Amino acid sequence: MTQYKEKACLIGSGNWGSAIAKIVGRNVTEHDGFDREVKMWVFEEMINGEKLTEIINTKHENAKYLPNIKLPPNVKAVPDVVETCHDATVLIFVVPHQFVKGICQKLVGRIRPDARAISLIKGVDVSAMGLTLVSDLIKQNLNVDVSVLMGANIANEVAAENFCETTIGYSDPDNAEVLKKLFHTPYFRVSTVPDVAGVEICGALKNIVALGAGFVDGLRYGDNTKAAIIRLGLLEMKKFAKMFYSGVRDETFLESCGVADLITTCSGGRNRRVAEAMVTTGKPLDVLEKEMLNGQKLQGTLTAKEVYEILSRQNLTHEFPLFTVIYRISFESLPASHIVRDL
Amino acid sequence: MTQYKEKACLIGSGNWGSAIAKIVGRNVTEHDGFDREVKMWVFEEMINGEKLTEIINTKHENAKYLPNIKLPPNVKAVPDVVETCHDATVLIFVVPHQFVKGICQKLVGRIRPDARAISLIKGVDVSAMGLTLVSDLIKQNLNVDVSVLMGANIANEVAAENFCETTIGYSDPDNAEVLKKLFHTPYFRVSTVPDVAGVEICGALKNIVALGAGFVDGLRYGDNTKAAIIRLGLLEMKKFAKMFYSGVRDETFLESCGVADLITTCSGGRNRRVAEAMVTTGKPLDVLEKEMLNGQKLQGTLTAKEVYEILSRQNLTHEFPLFTVIYRISFESLPASHIVRDL
Repeated sequence: MTQYKEKACLIGSGNWGSAIAKIVGRNVTEHDGFDREVKMWVFEEMINGEKLTEIINTKHENAKYLPNIKLPPNVKAVPDVVETCHDATVLIFVVPHQFVKGICQKLVGRIRPDARAISLIKGVDVSAMGLTLVSDLIKQNLNVDVSVLMGANIANEVAAENFCETTIGYSDPDNAEVLKKLFHTPYFRVSTVPDVAGVEICGALKNIVALGAGFVDGLRYGDNTKAAIIRLGLLEMKKFAKMFYSGVRDETFLESCGVADLITTCSGGRNRRVAEAMVTTGKPLDVLEKEMLNGQKLQGTLTAKEVYEILSRQNLTHEFPLFTVIYRISFESLPASHIVRDL
Repeated sequence: MTQYKEKACLIGSGNWGSAIAKIVGRNVTEHDGFDREVKMWVFEEMINGEKLTEIINTKHENAKYLPNIKLPPNVKAVPDVVETCHDATVLIFVVPHQFVKGICQKLVGRIRPDARAISLIKGVDVSAMGLTLVSDLIKQNLNVDVSVLMGANIANEVAAENFCETTIGYSDPDNAEVLKKLFHTPYFRVSTVPDVAGVEICGALKNIVALGAGFVDGLRYGDNTKAAIIRLGLLEMKKFAKMFYSGVRDETFLESCGVADLITTCSGGRNRRVAEAMVTTGKPLDVLEKEMLNGQKLQGTLTAKEVYEILSRQNLTHEFPLFTVIYRISFESLPASHIVRDL
């Protein structure tokens, strides 16, 4: 008789994926009911003549994306995503959002029927069809229950075991219980809320607000103004979420995924930084994106554009003055000083 | 027949009082129904051989507390507080909170019966009787309706006309309307909420949270941890306010007086700064207060102590782990690292 065991796997092994691998790898050995092996899908690449999967499996360190942090030895790097996932009951998605669709297509029919997923991916999928939540994309493709985990969680700080909080949005309470066991530690405090869409939308819309915070920083308007932008941003995030998704709860915006992640993103964060540079250098955002981000994309501008198109189609721009003015500054050459004038 | 006119006066002329005098002095000339003269009580002192009241009344600048900012010429500095207030319908209190009681005692029986007050004073009055809201102190002494104005409002940034928001908490809607006219400008955006206690408690309790933010900064725990402290602080502020005062509204904590002022106070602010120095230098808070603040007092420690005593008397410390651990670090030599361990 074999005891039923949950088995977790990680789809993704970047900076955040590796920080989470450290937590999940540890937690499966500390709770009953979990298989001790955690497979982690690694996009294979060569680092100084060695395969990244081999480095991870022998040195227990992701030398490229999270150097100097030991991963638990039971985290096993696997270069094939189907092999990573086929026997898992919990699929942890932690890849850049543009890869989700392709990965899901590979996994169709190759996962356990009792598997469920959790997405740690901040951002939304923007296509000709409009704005799609990553959790919905996974659900549509794989027909599994999907939870999300979002919060004020800068990967390197989590890897260093500095205290923070995070929020899991779930629809099935049984899944929430399993997931809390997988992710919660004394330094990475998990709250669970029955609101997948609310949690996930916070993770996407905060990047629009961060652009606004960056404009204000570039204009040297000071702490009062920045706090006002953060506050107004939080209110528009909530209003947008409640208008376009059902079941979104007010309380979600006071969780780590809401106000806390917004504060962190508006303090550091690449969206804020590039927006500030736009004001101080006079260069457009797409030029700075190429110069400053080394191939990474600005989530904030993508999301700002899509949100603006949705609002605009429905004649709702006047109800979201902050999102609207941030879009116009980003894409229509409106001077940045309008961020406060147009509110 | 003389038209009935509102007449505003300012009790206080420090940094914040002078910044507000600029706004109020202007607004009374732009709205109907207000007397154009705004008397401002100035504690007389000599600046380079000249009286401060004379400098203000001839150069229209508070050379000591808000240099290089022009005040409207209809703001008239008056060295006597009774003379300042006797004909006013709106008394604007903006003095350090320890002076409120003495000023009220001078004004008893010397103000108009139809006068009402508004307090811009952040902090609470702490005495042997416990914790008293400044608005209640004024109400008890003068028997007038008292509103409050609080927000993310660093005085110099307001004086420079950088955009920000503020919150007026009122109990009488008619007064709220008059007050909004007195204070609102396009760069100083006023919201009104029917919740005097909620608004005022935010202004007091935020200083406790700022100590926590300072400890975390001193420990170099990073942005995730700081955002968590701010978020948990906001929740304890709300919980405390709702537990000890009636009529406090959830929405108040999302106004400028709540989340925005808390963010500003935890970014800059003297409470945060001194708490950070405690961790980095190892000196006690009271020593640093003397060294760093040039005679000013730390609101945060006073409030932390009083709140802890209230919680402790009622066996409620476990329900407020953040306030409690901040008190213990401040006053009981608990190592600062417990700020995250004890949560």
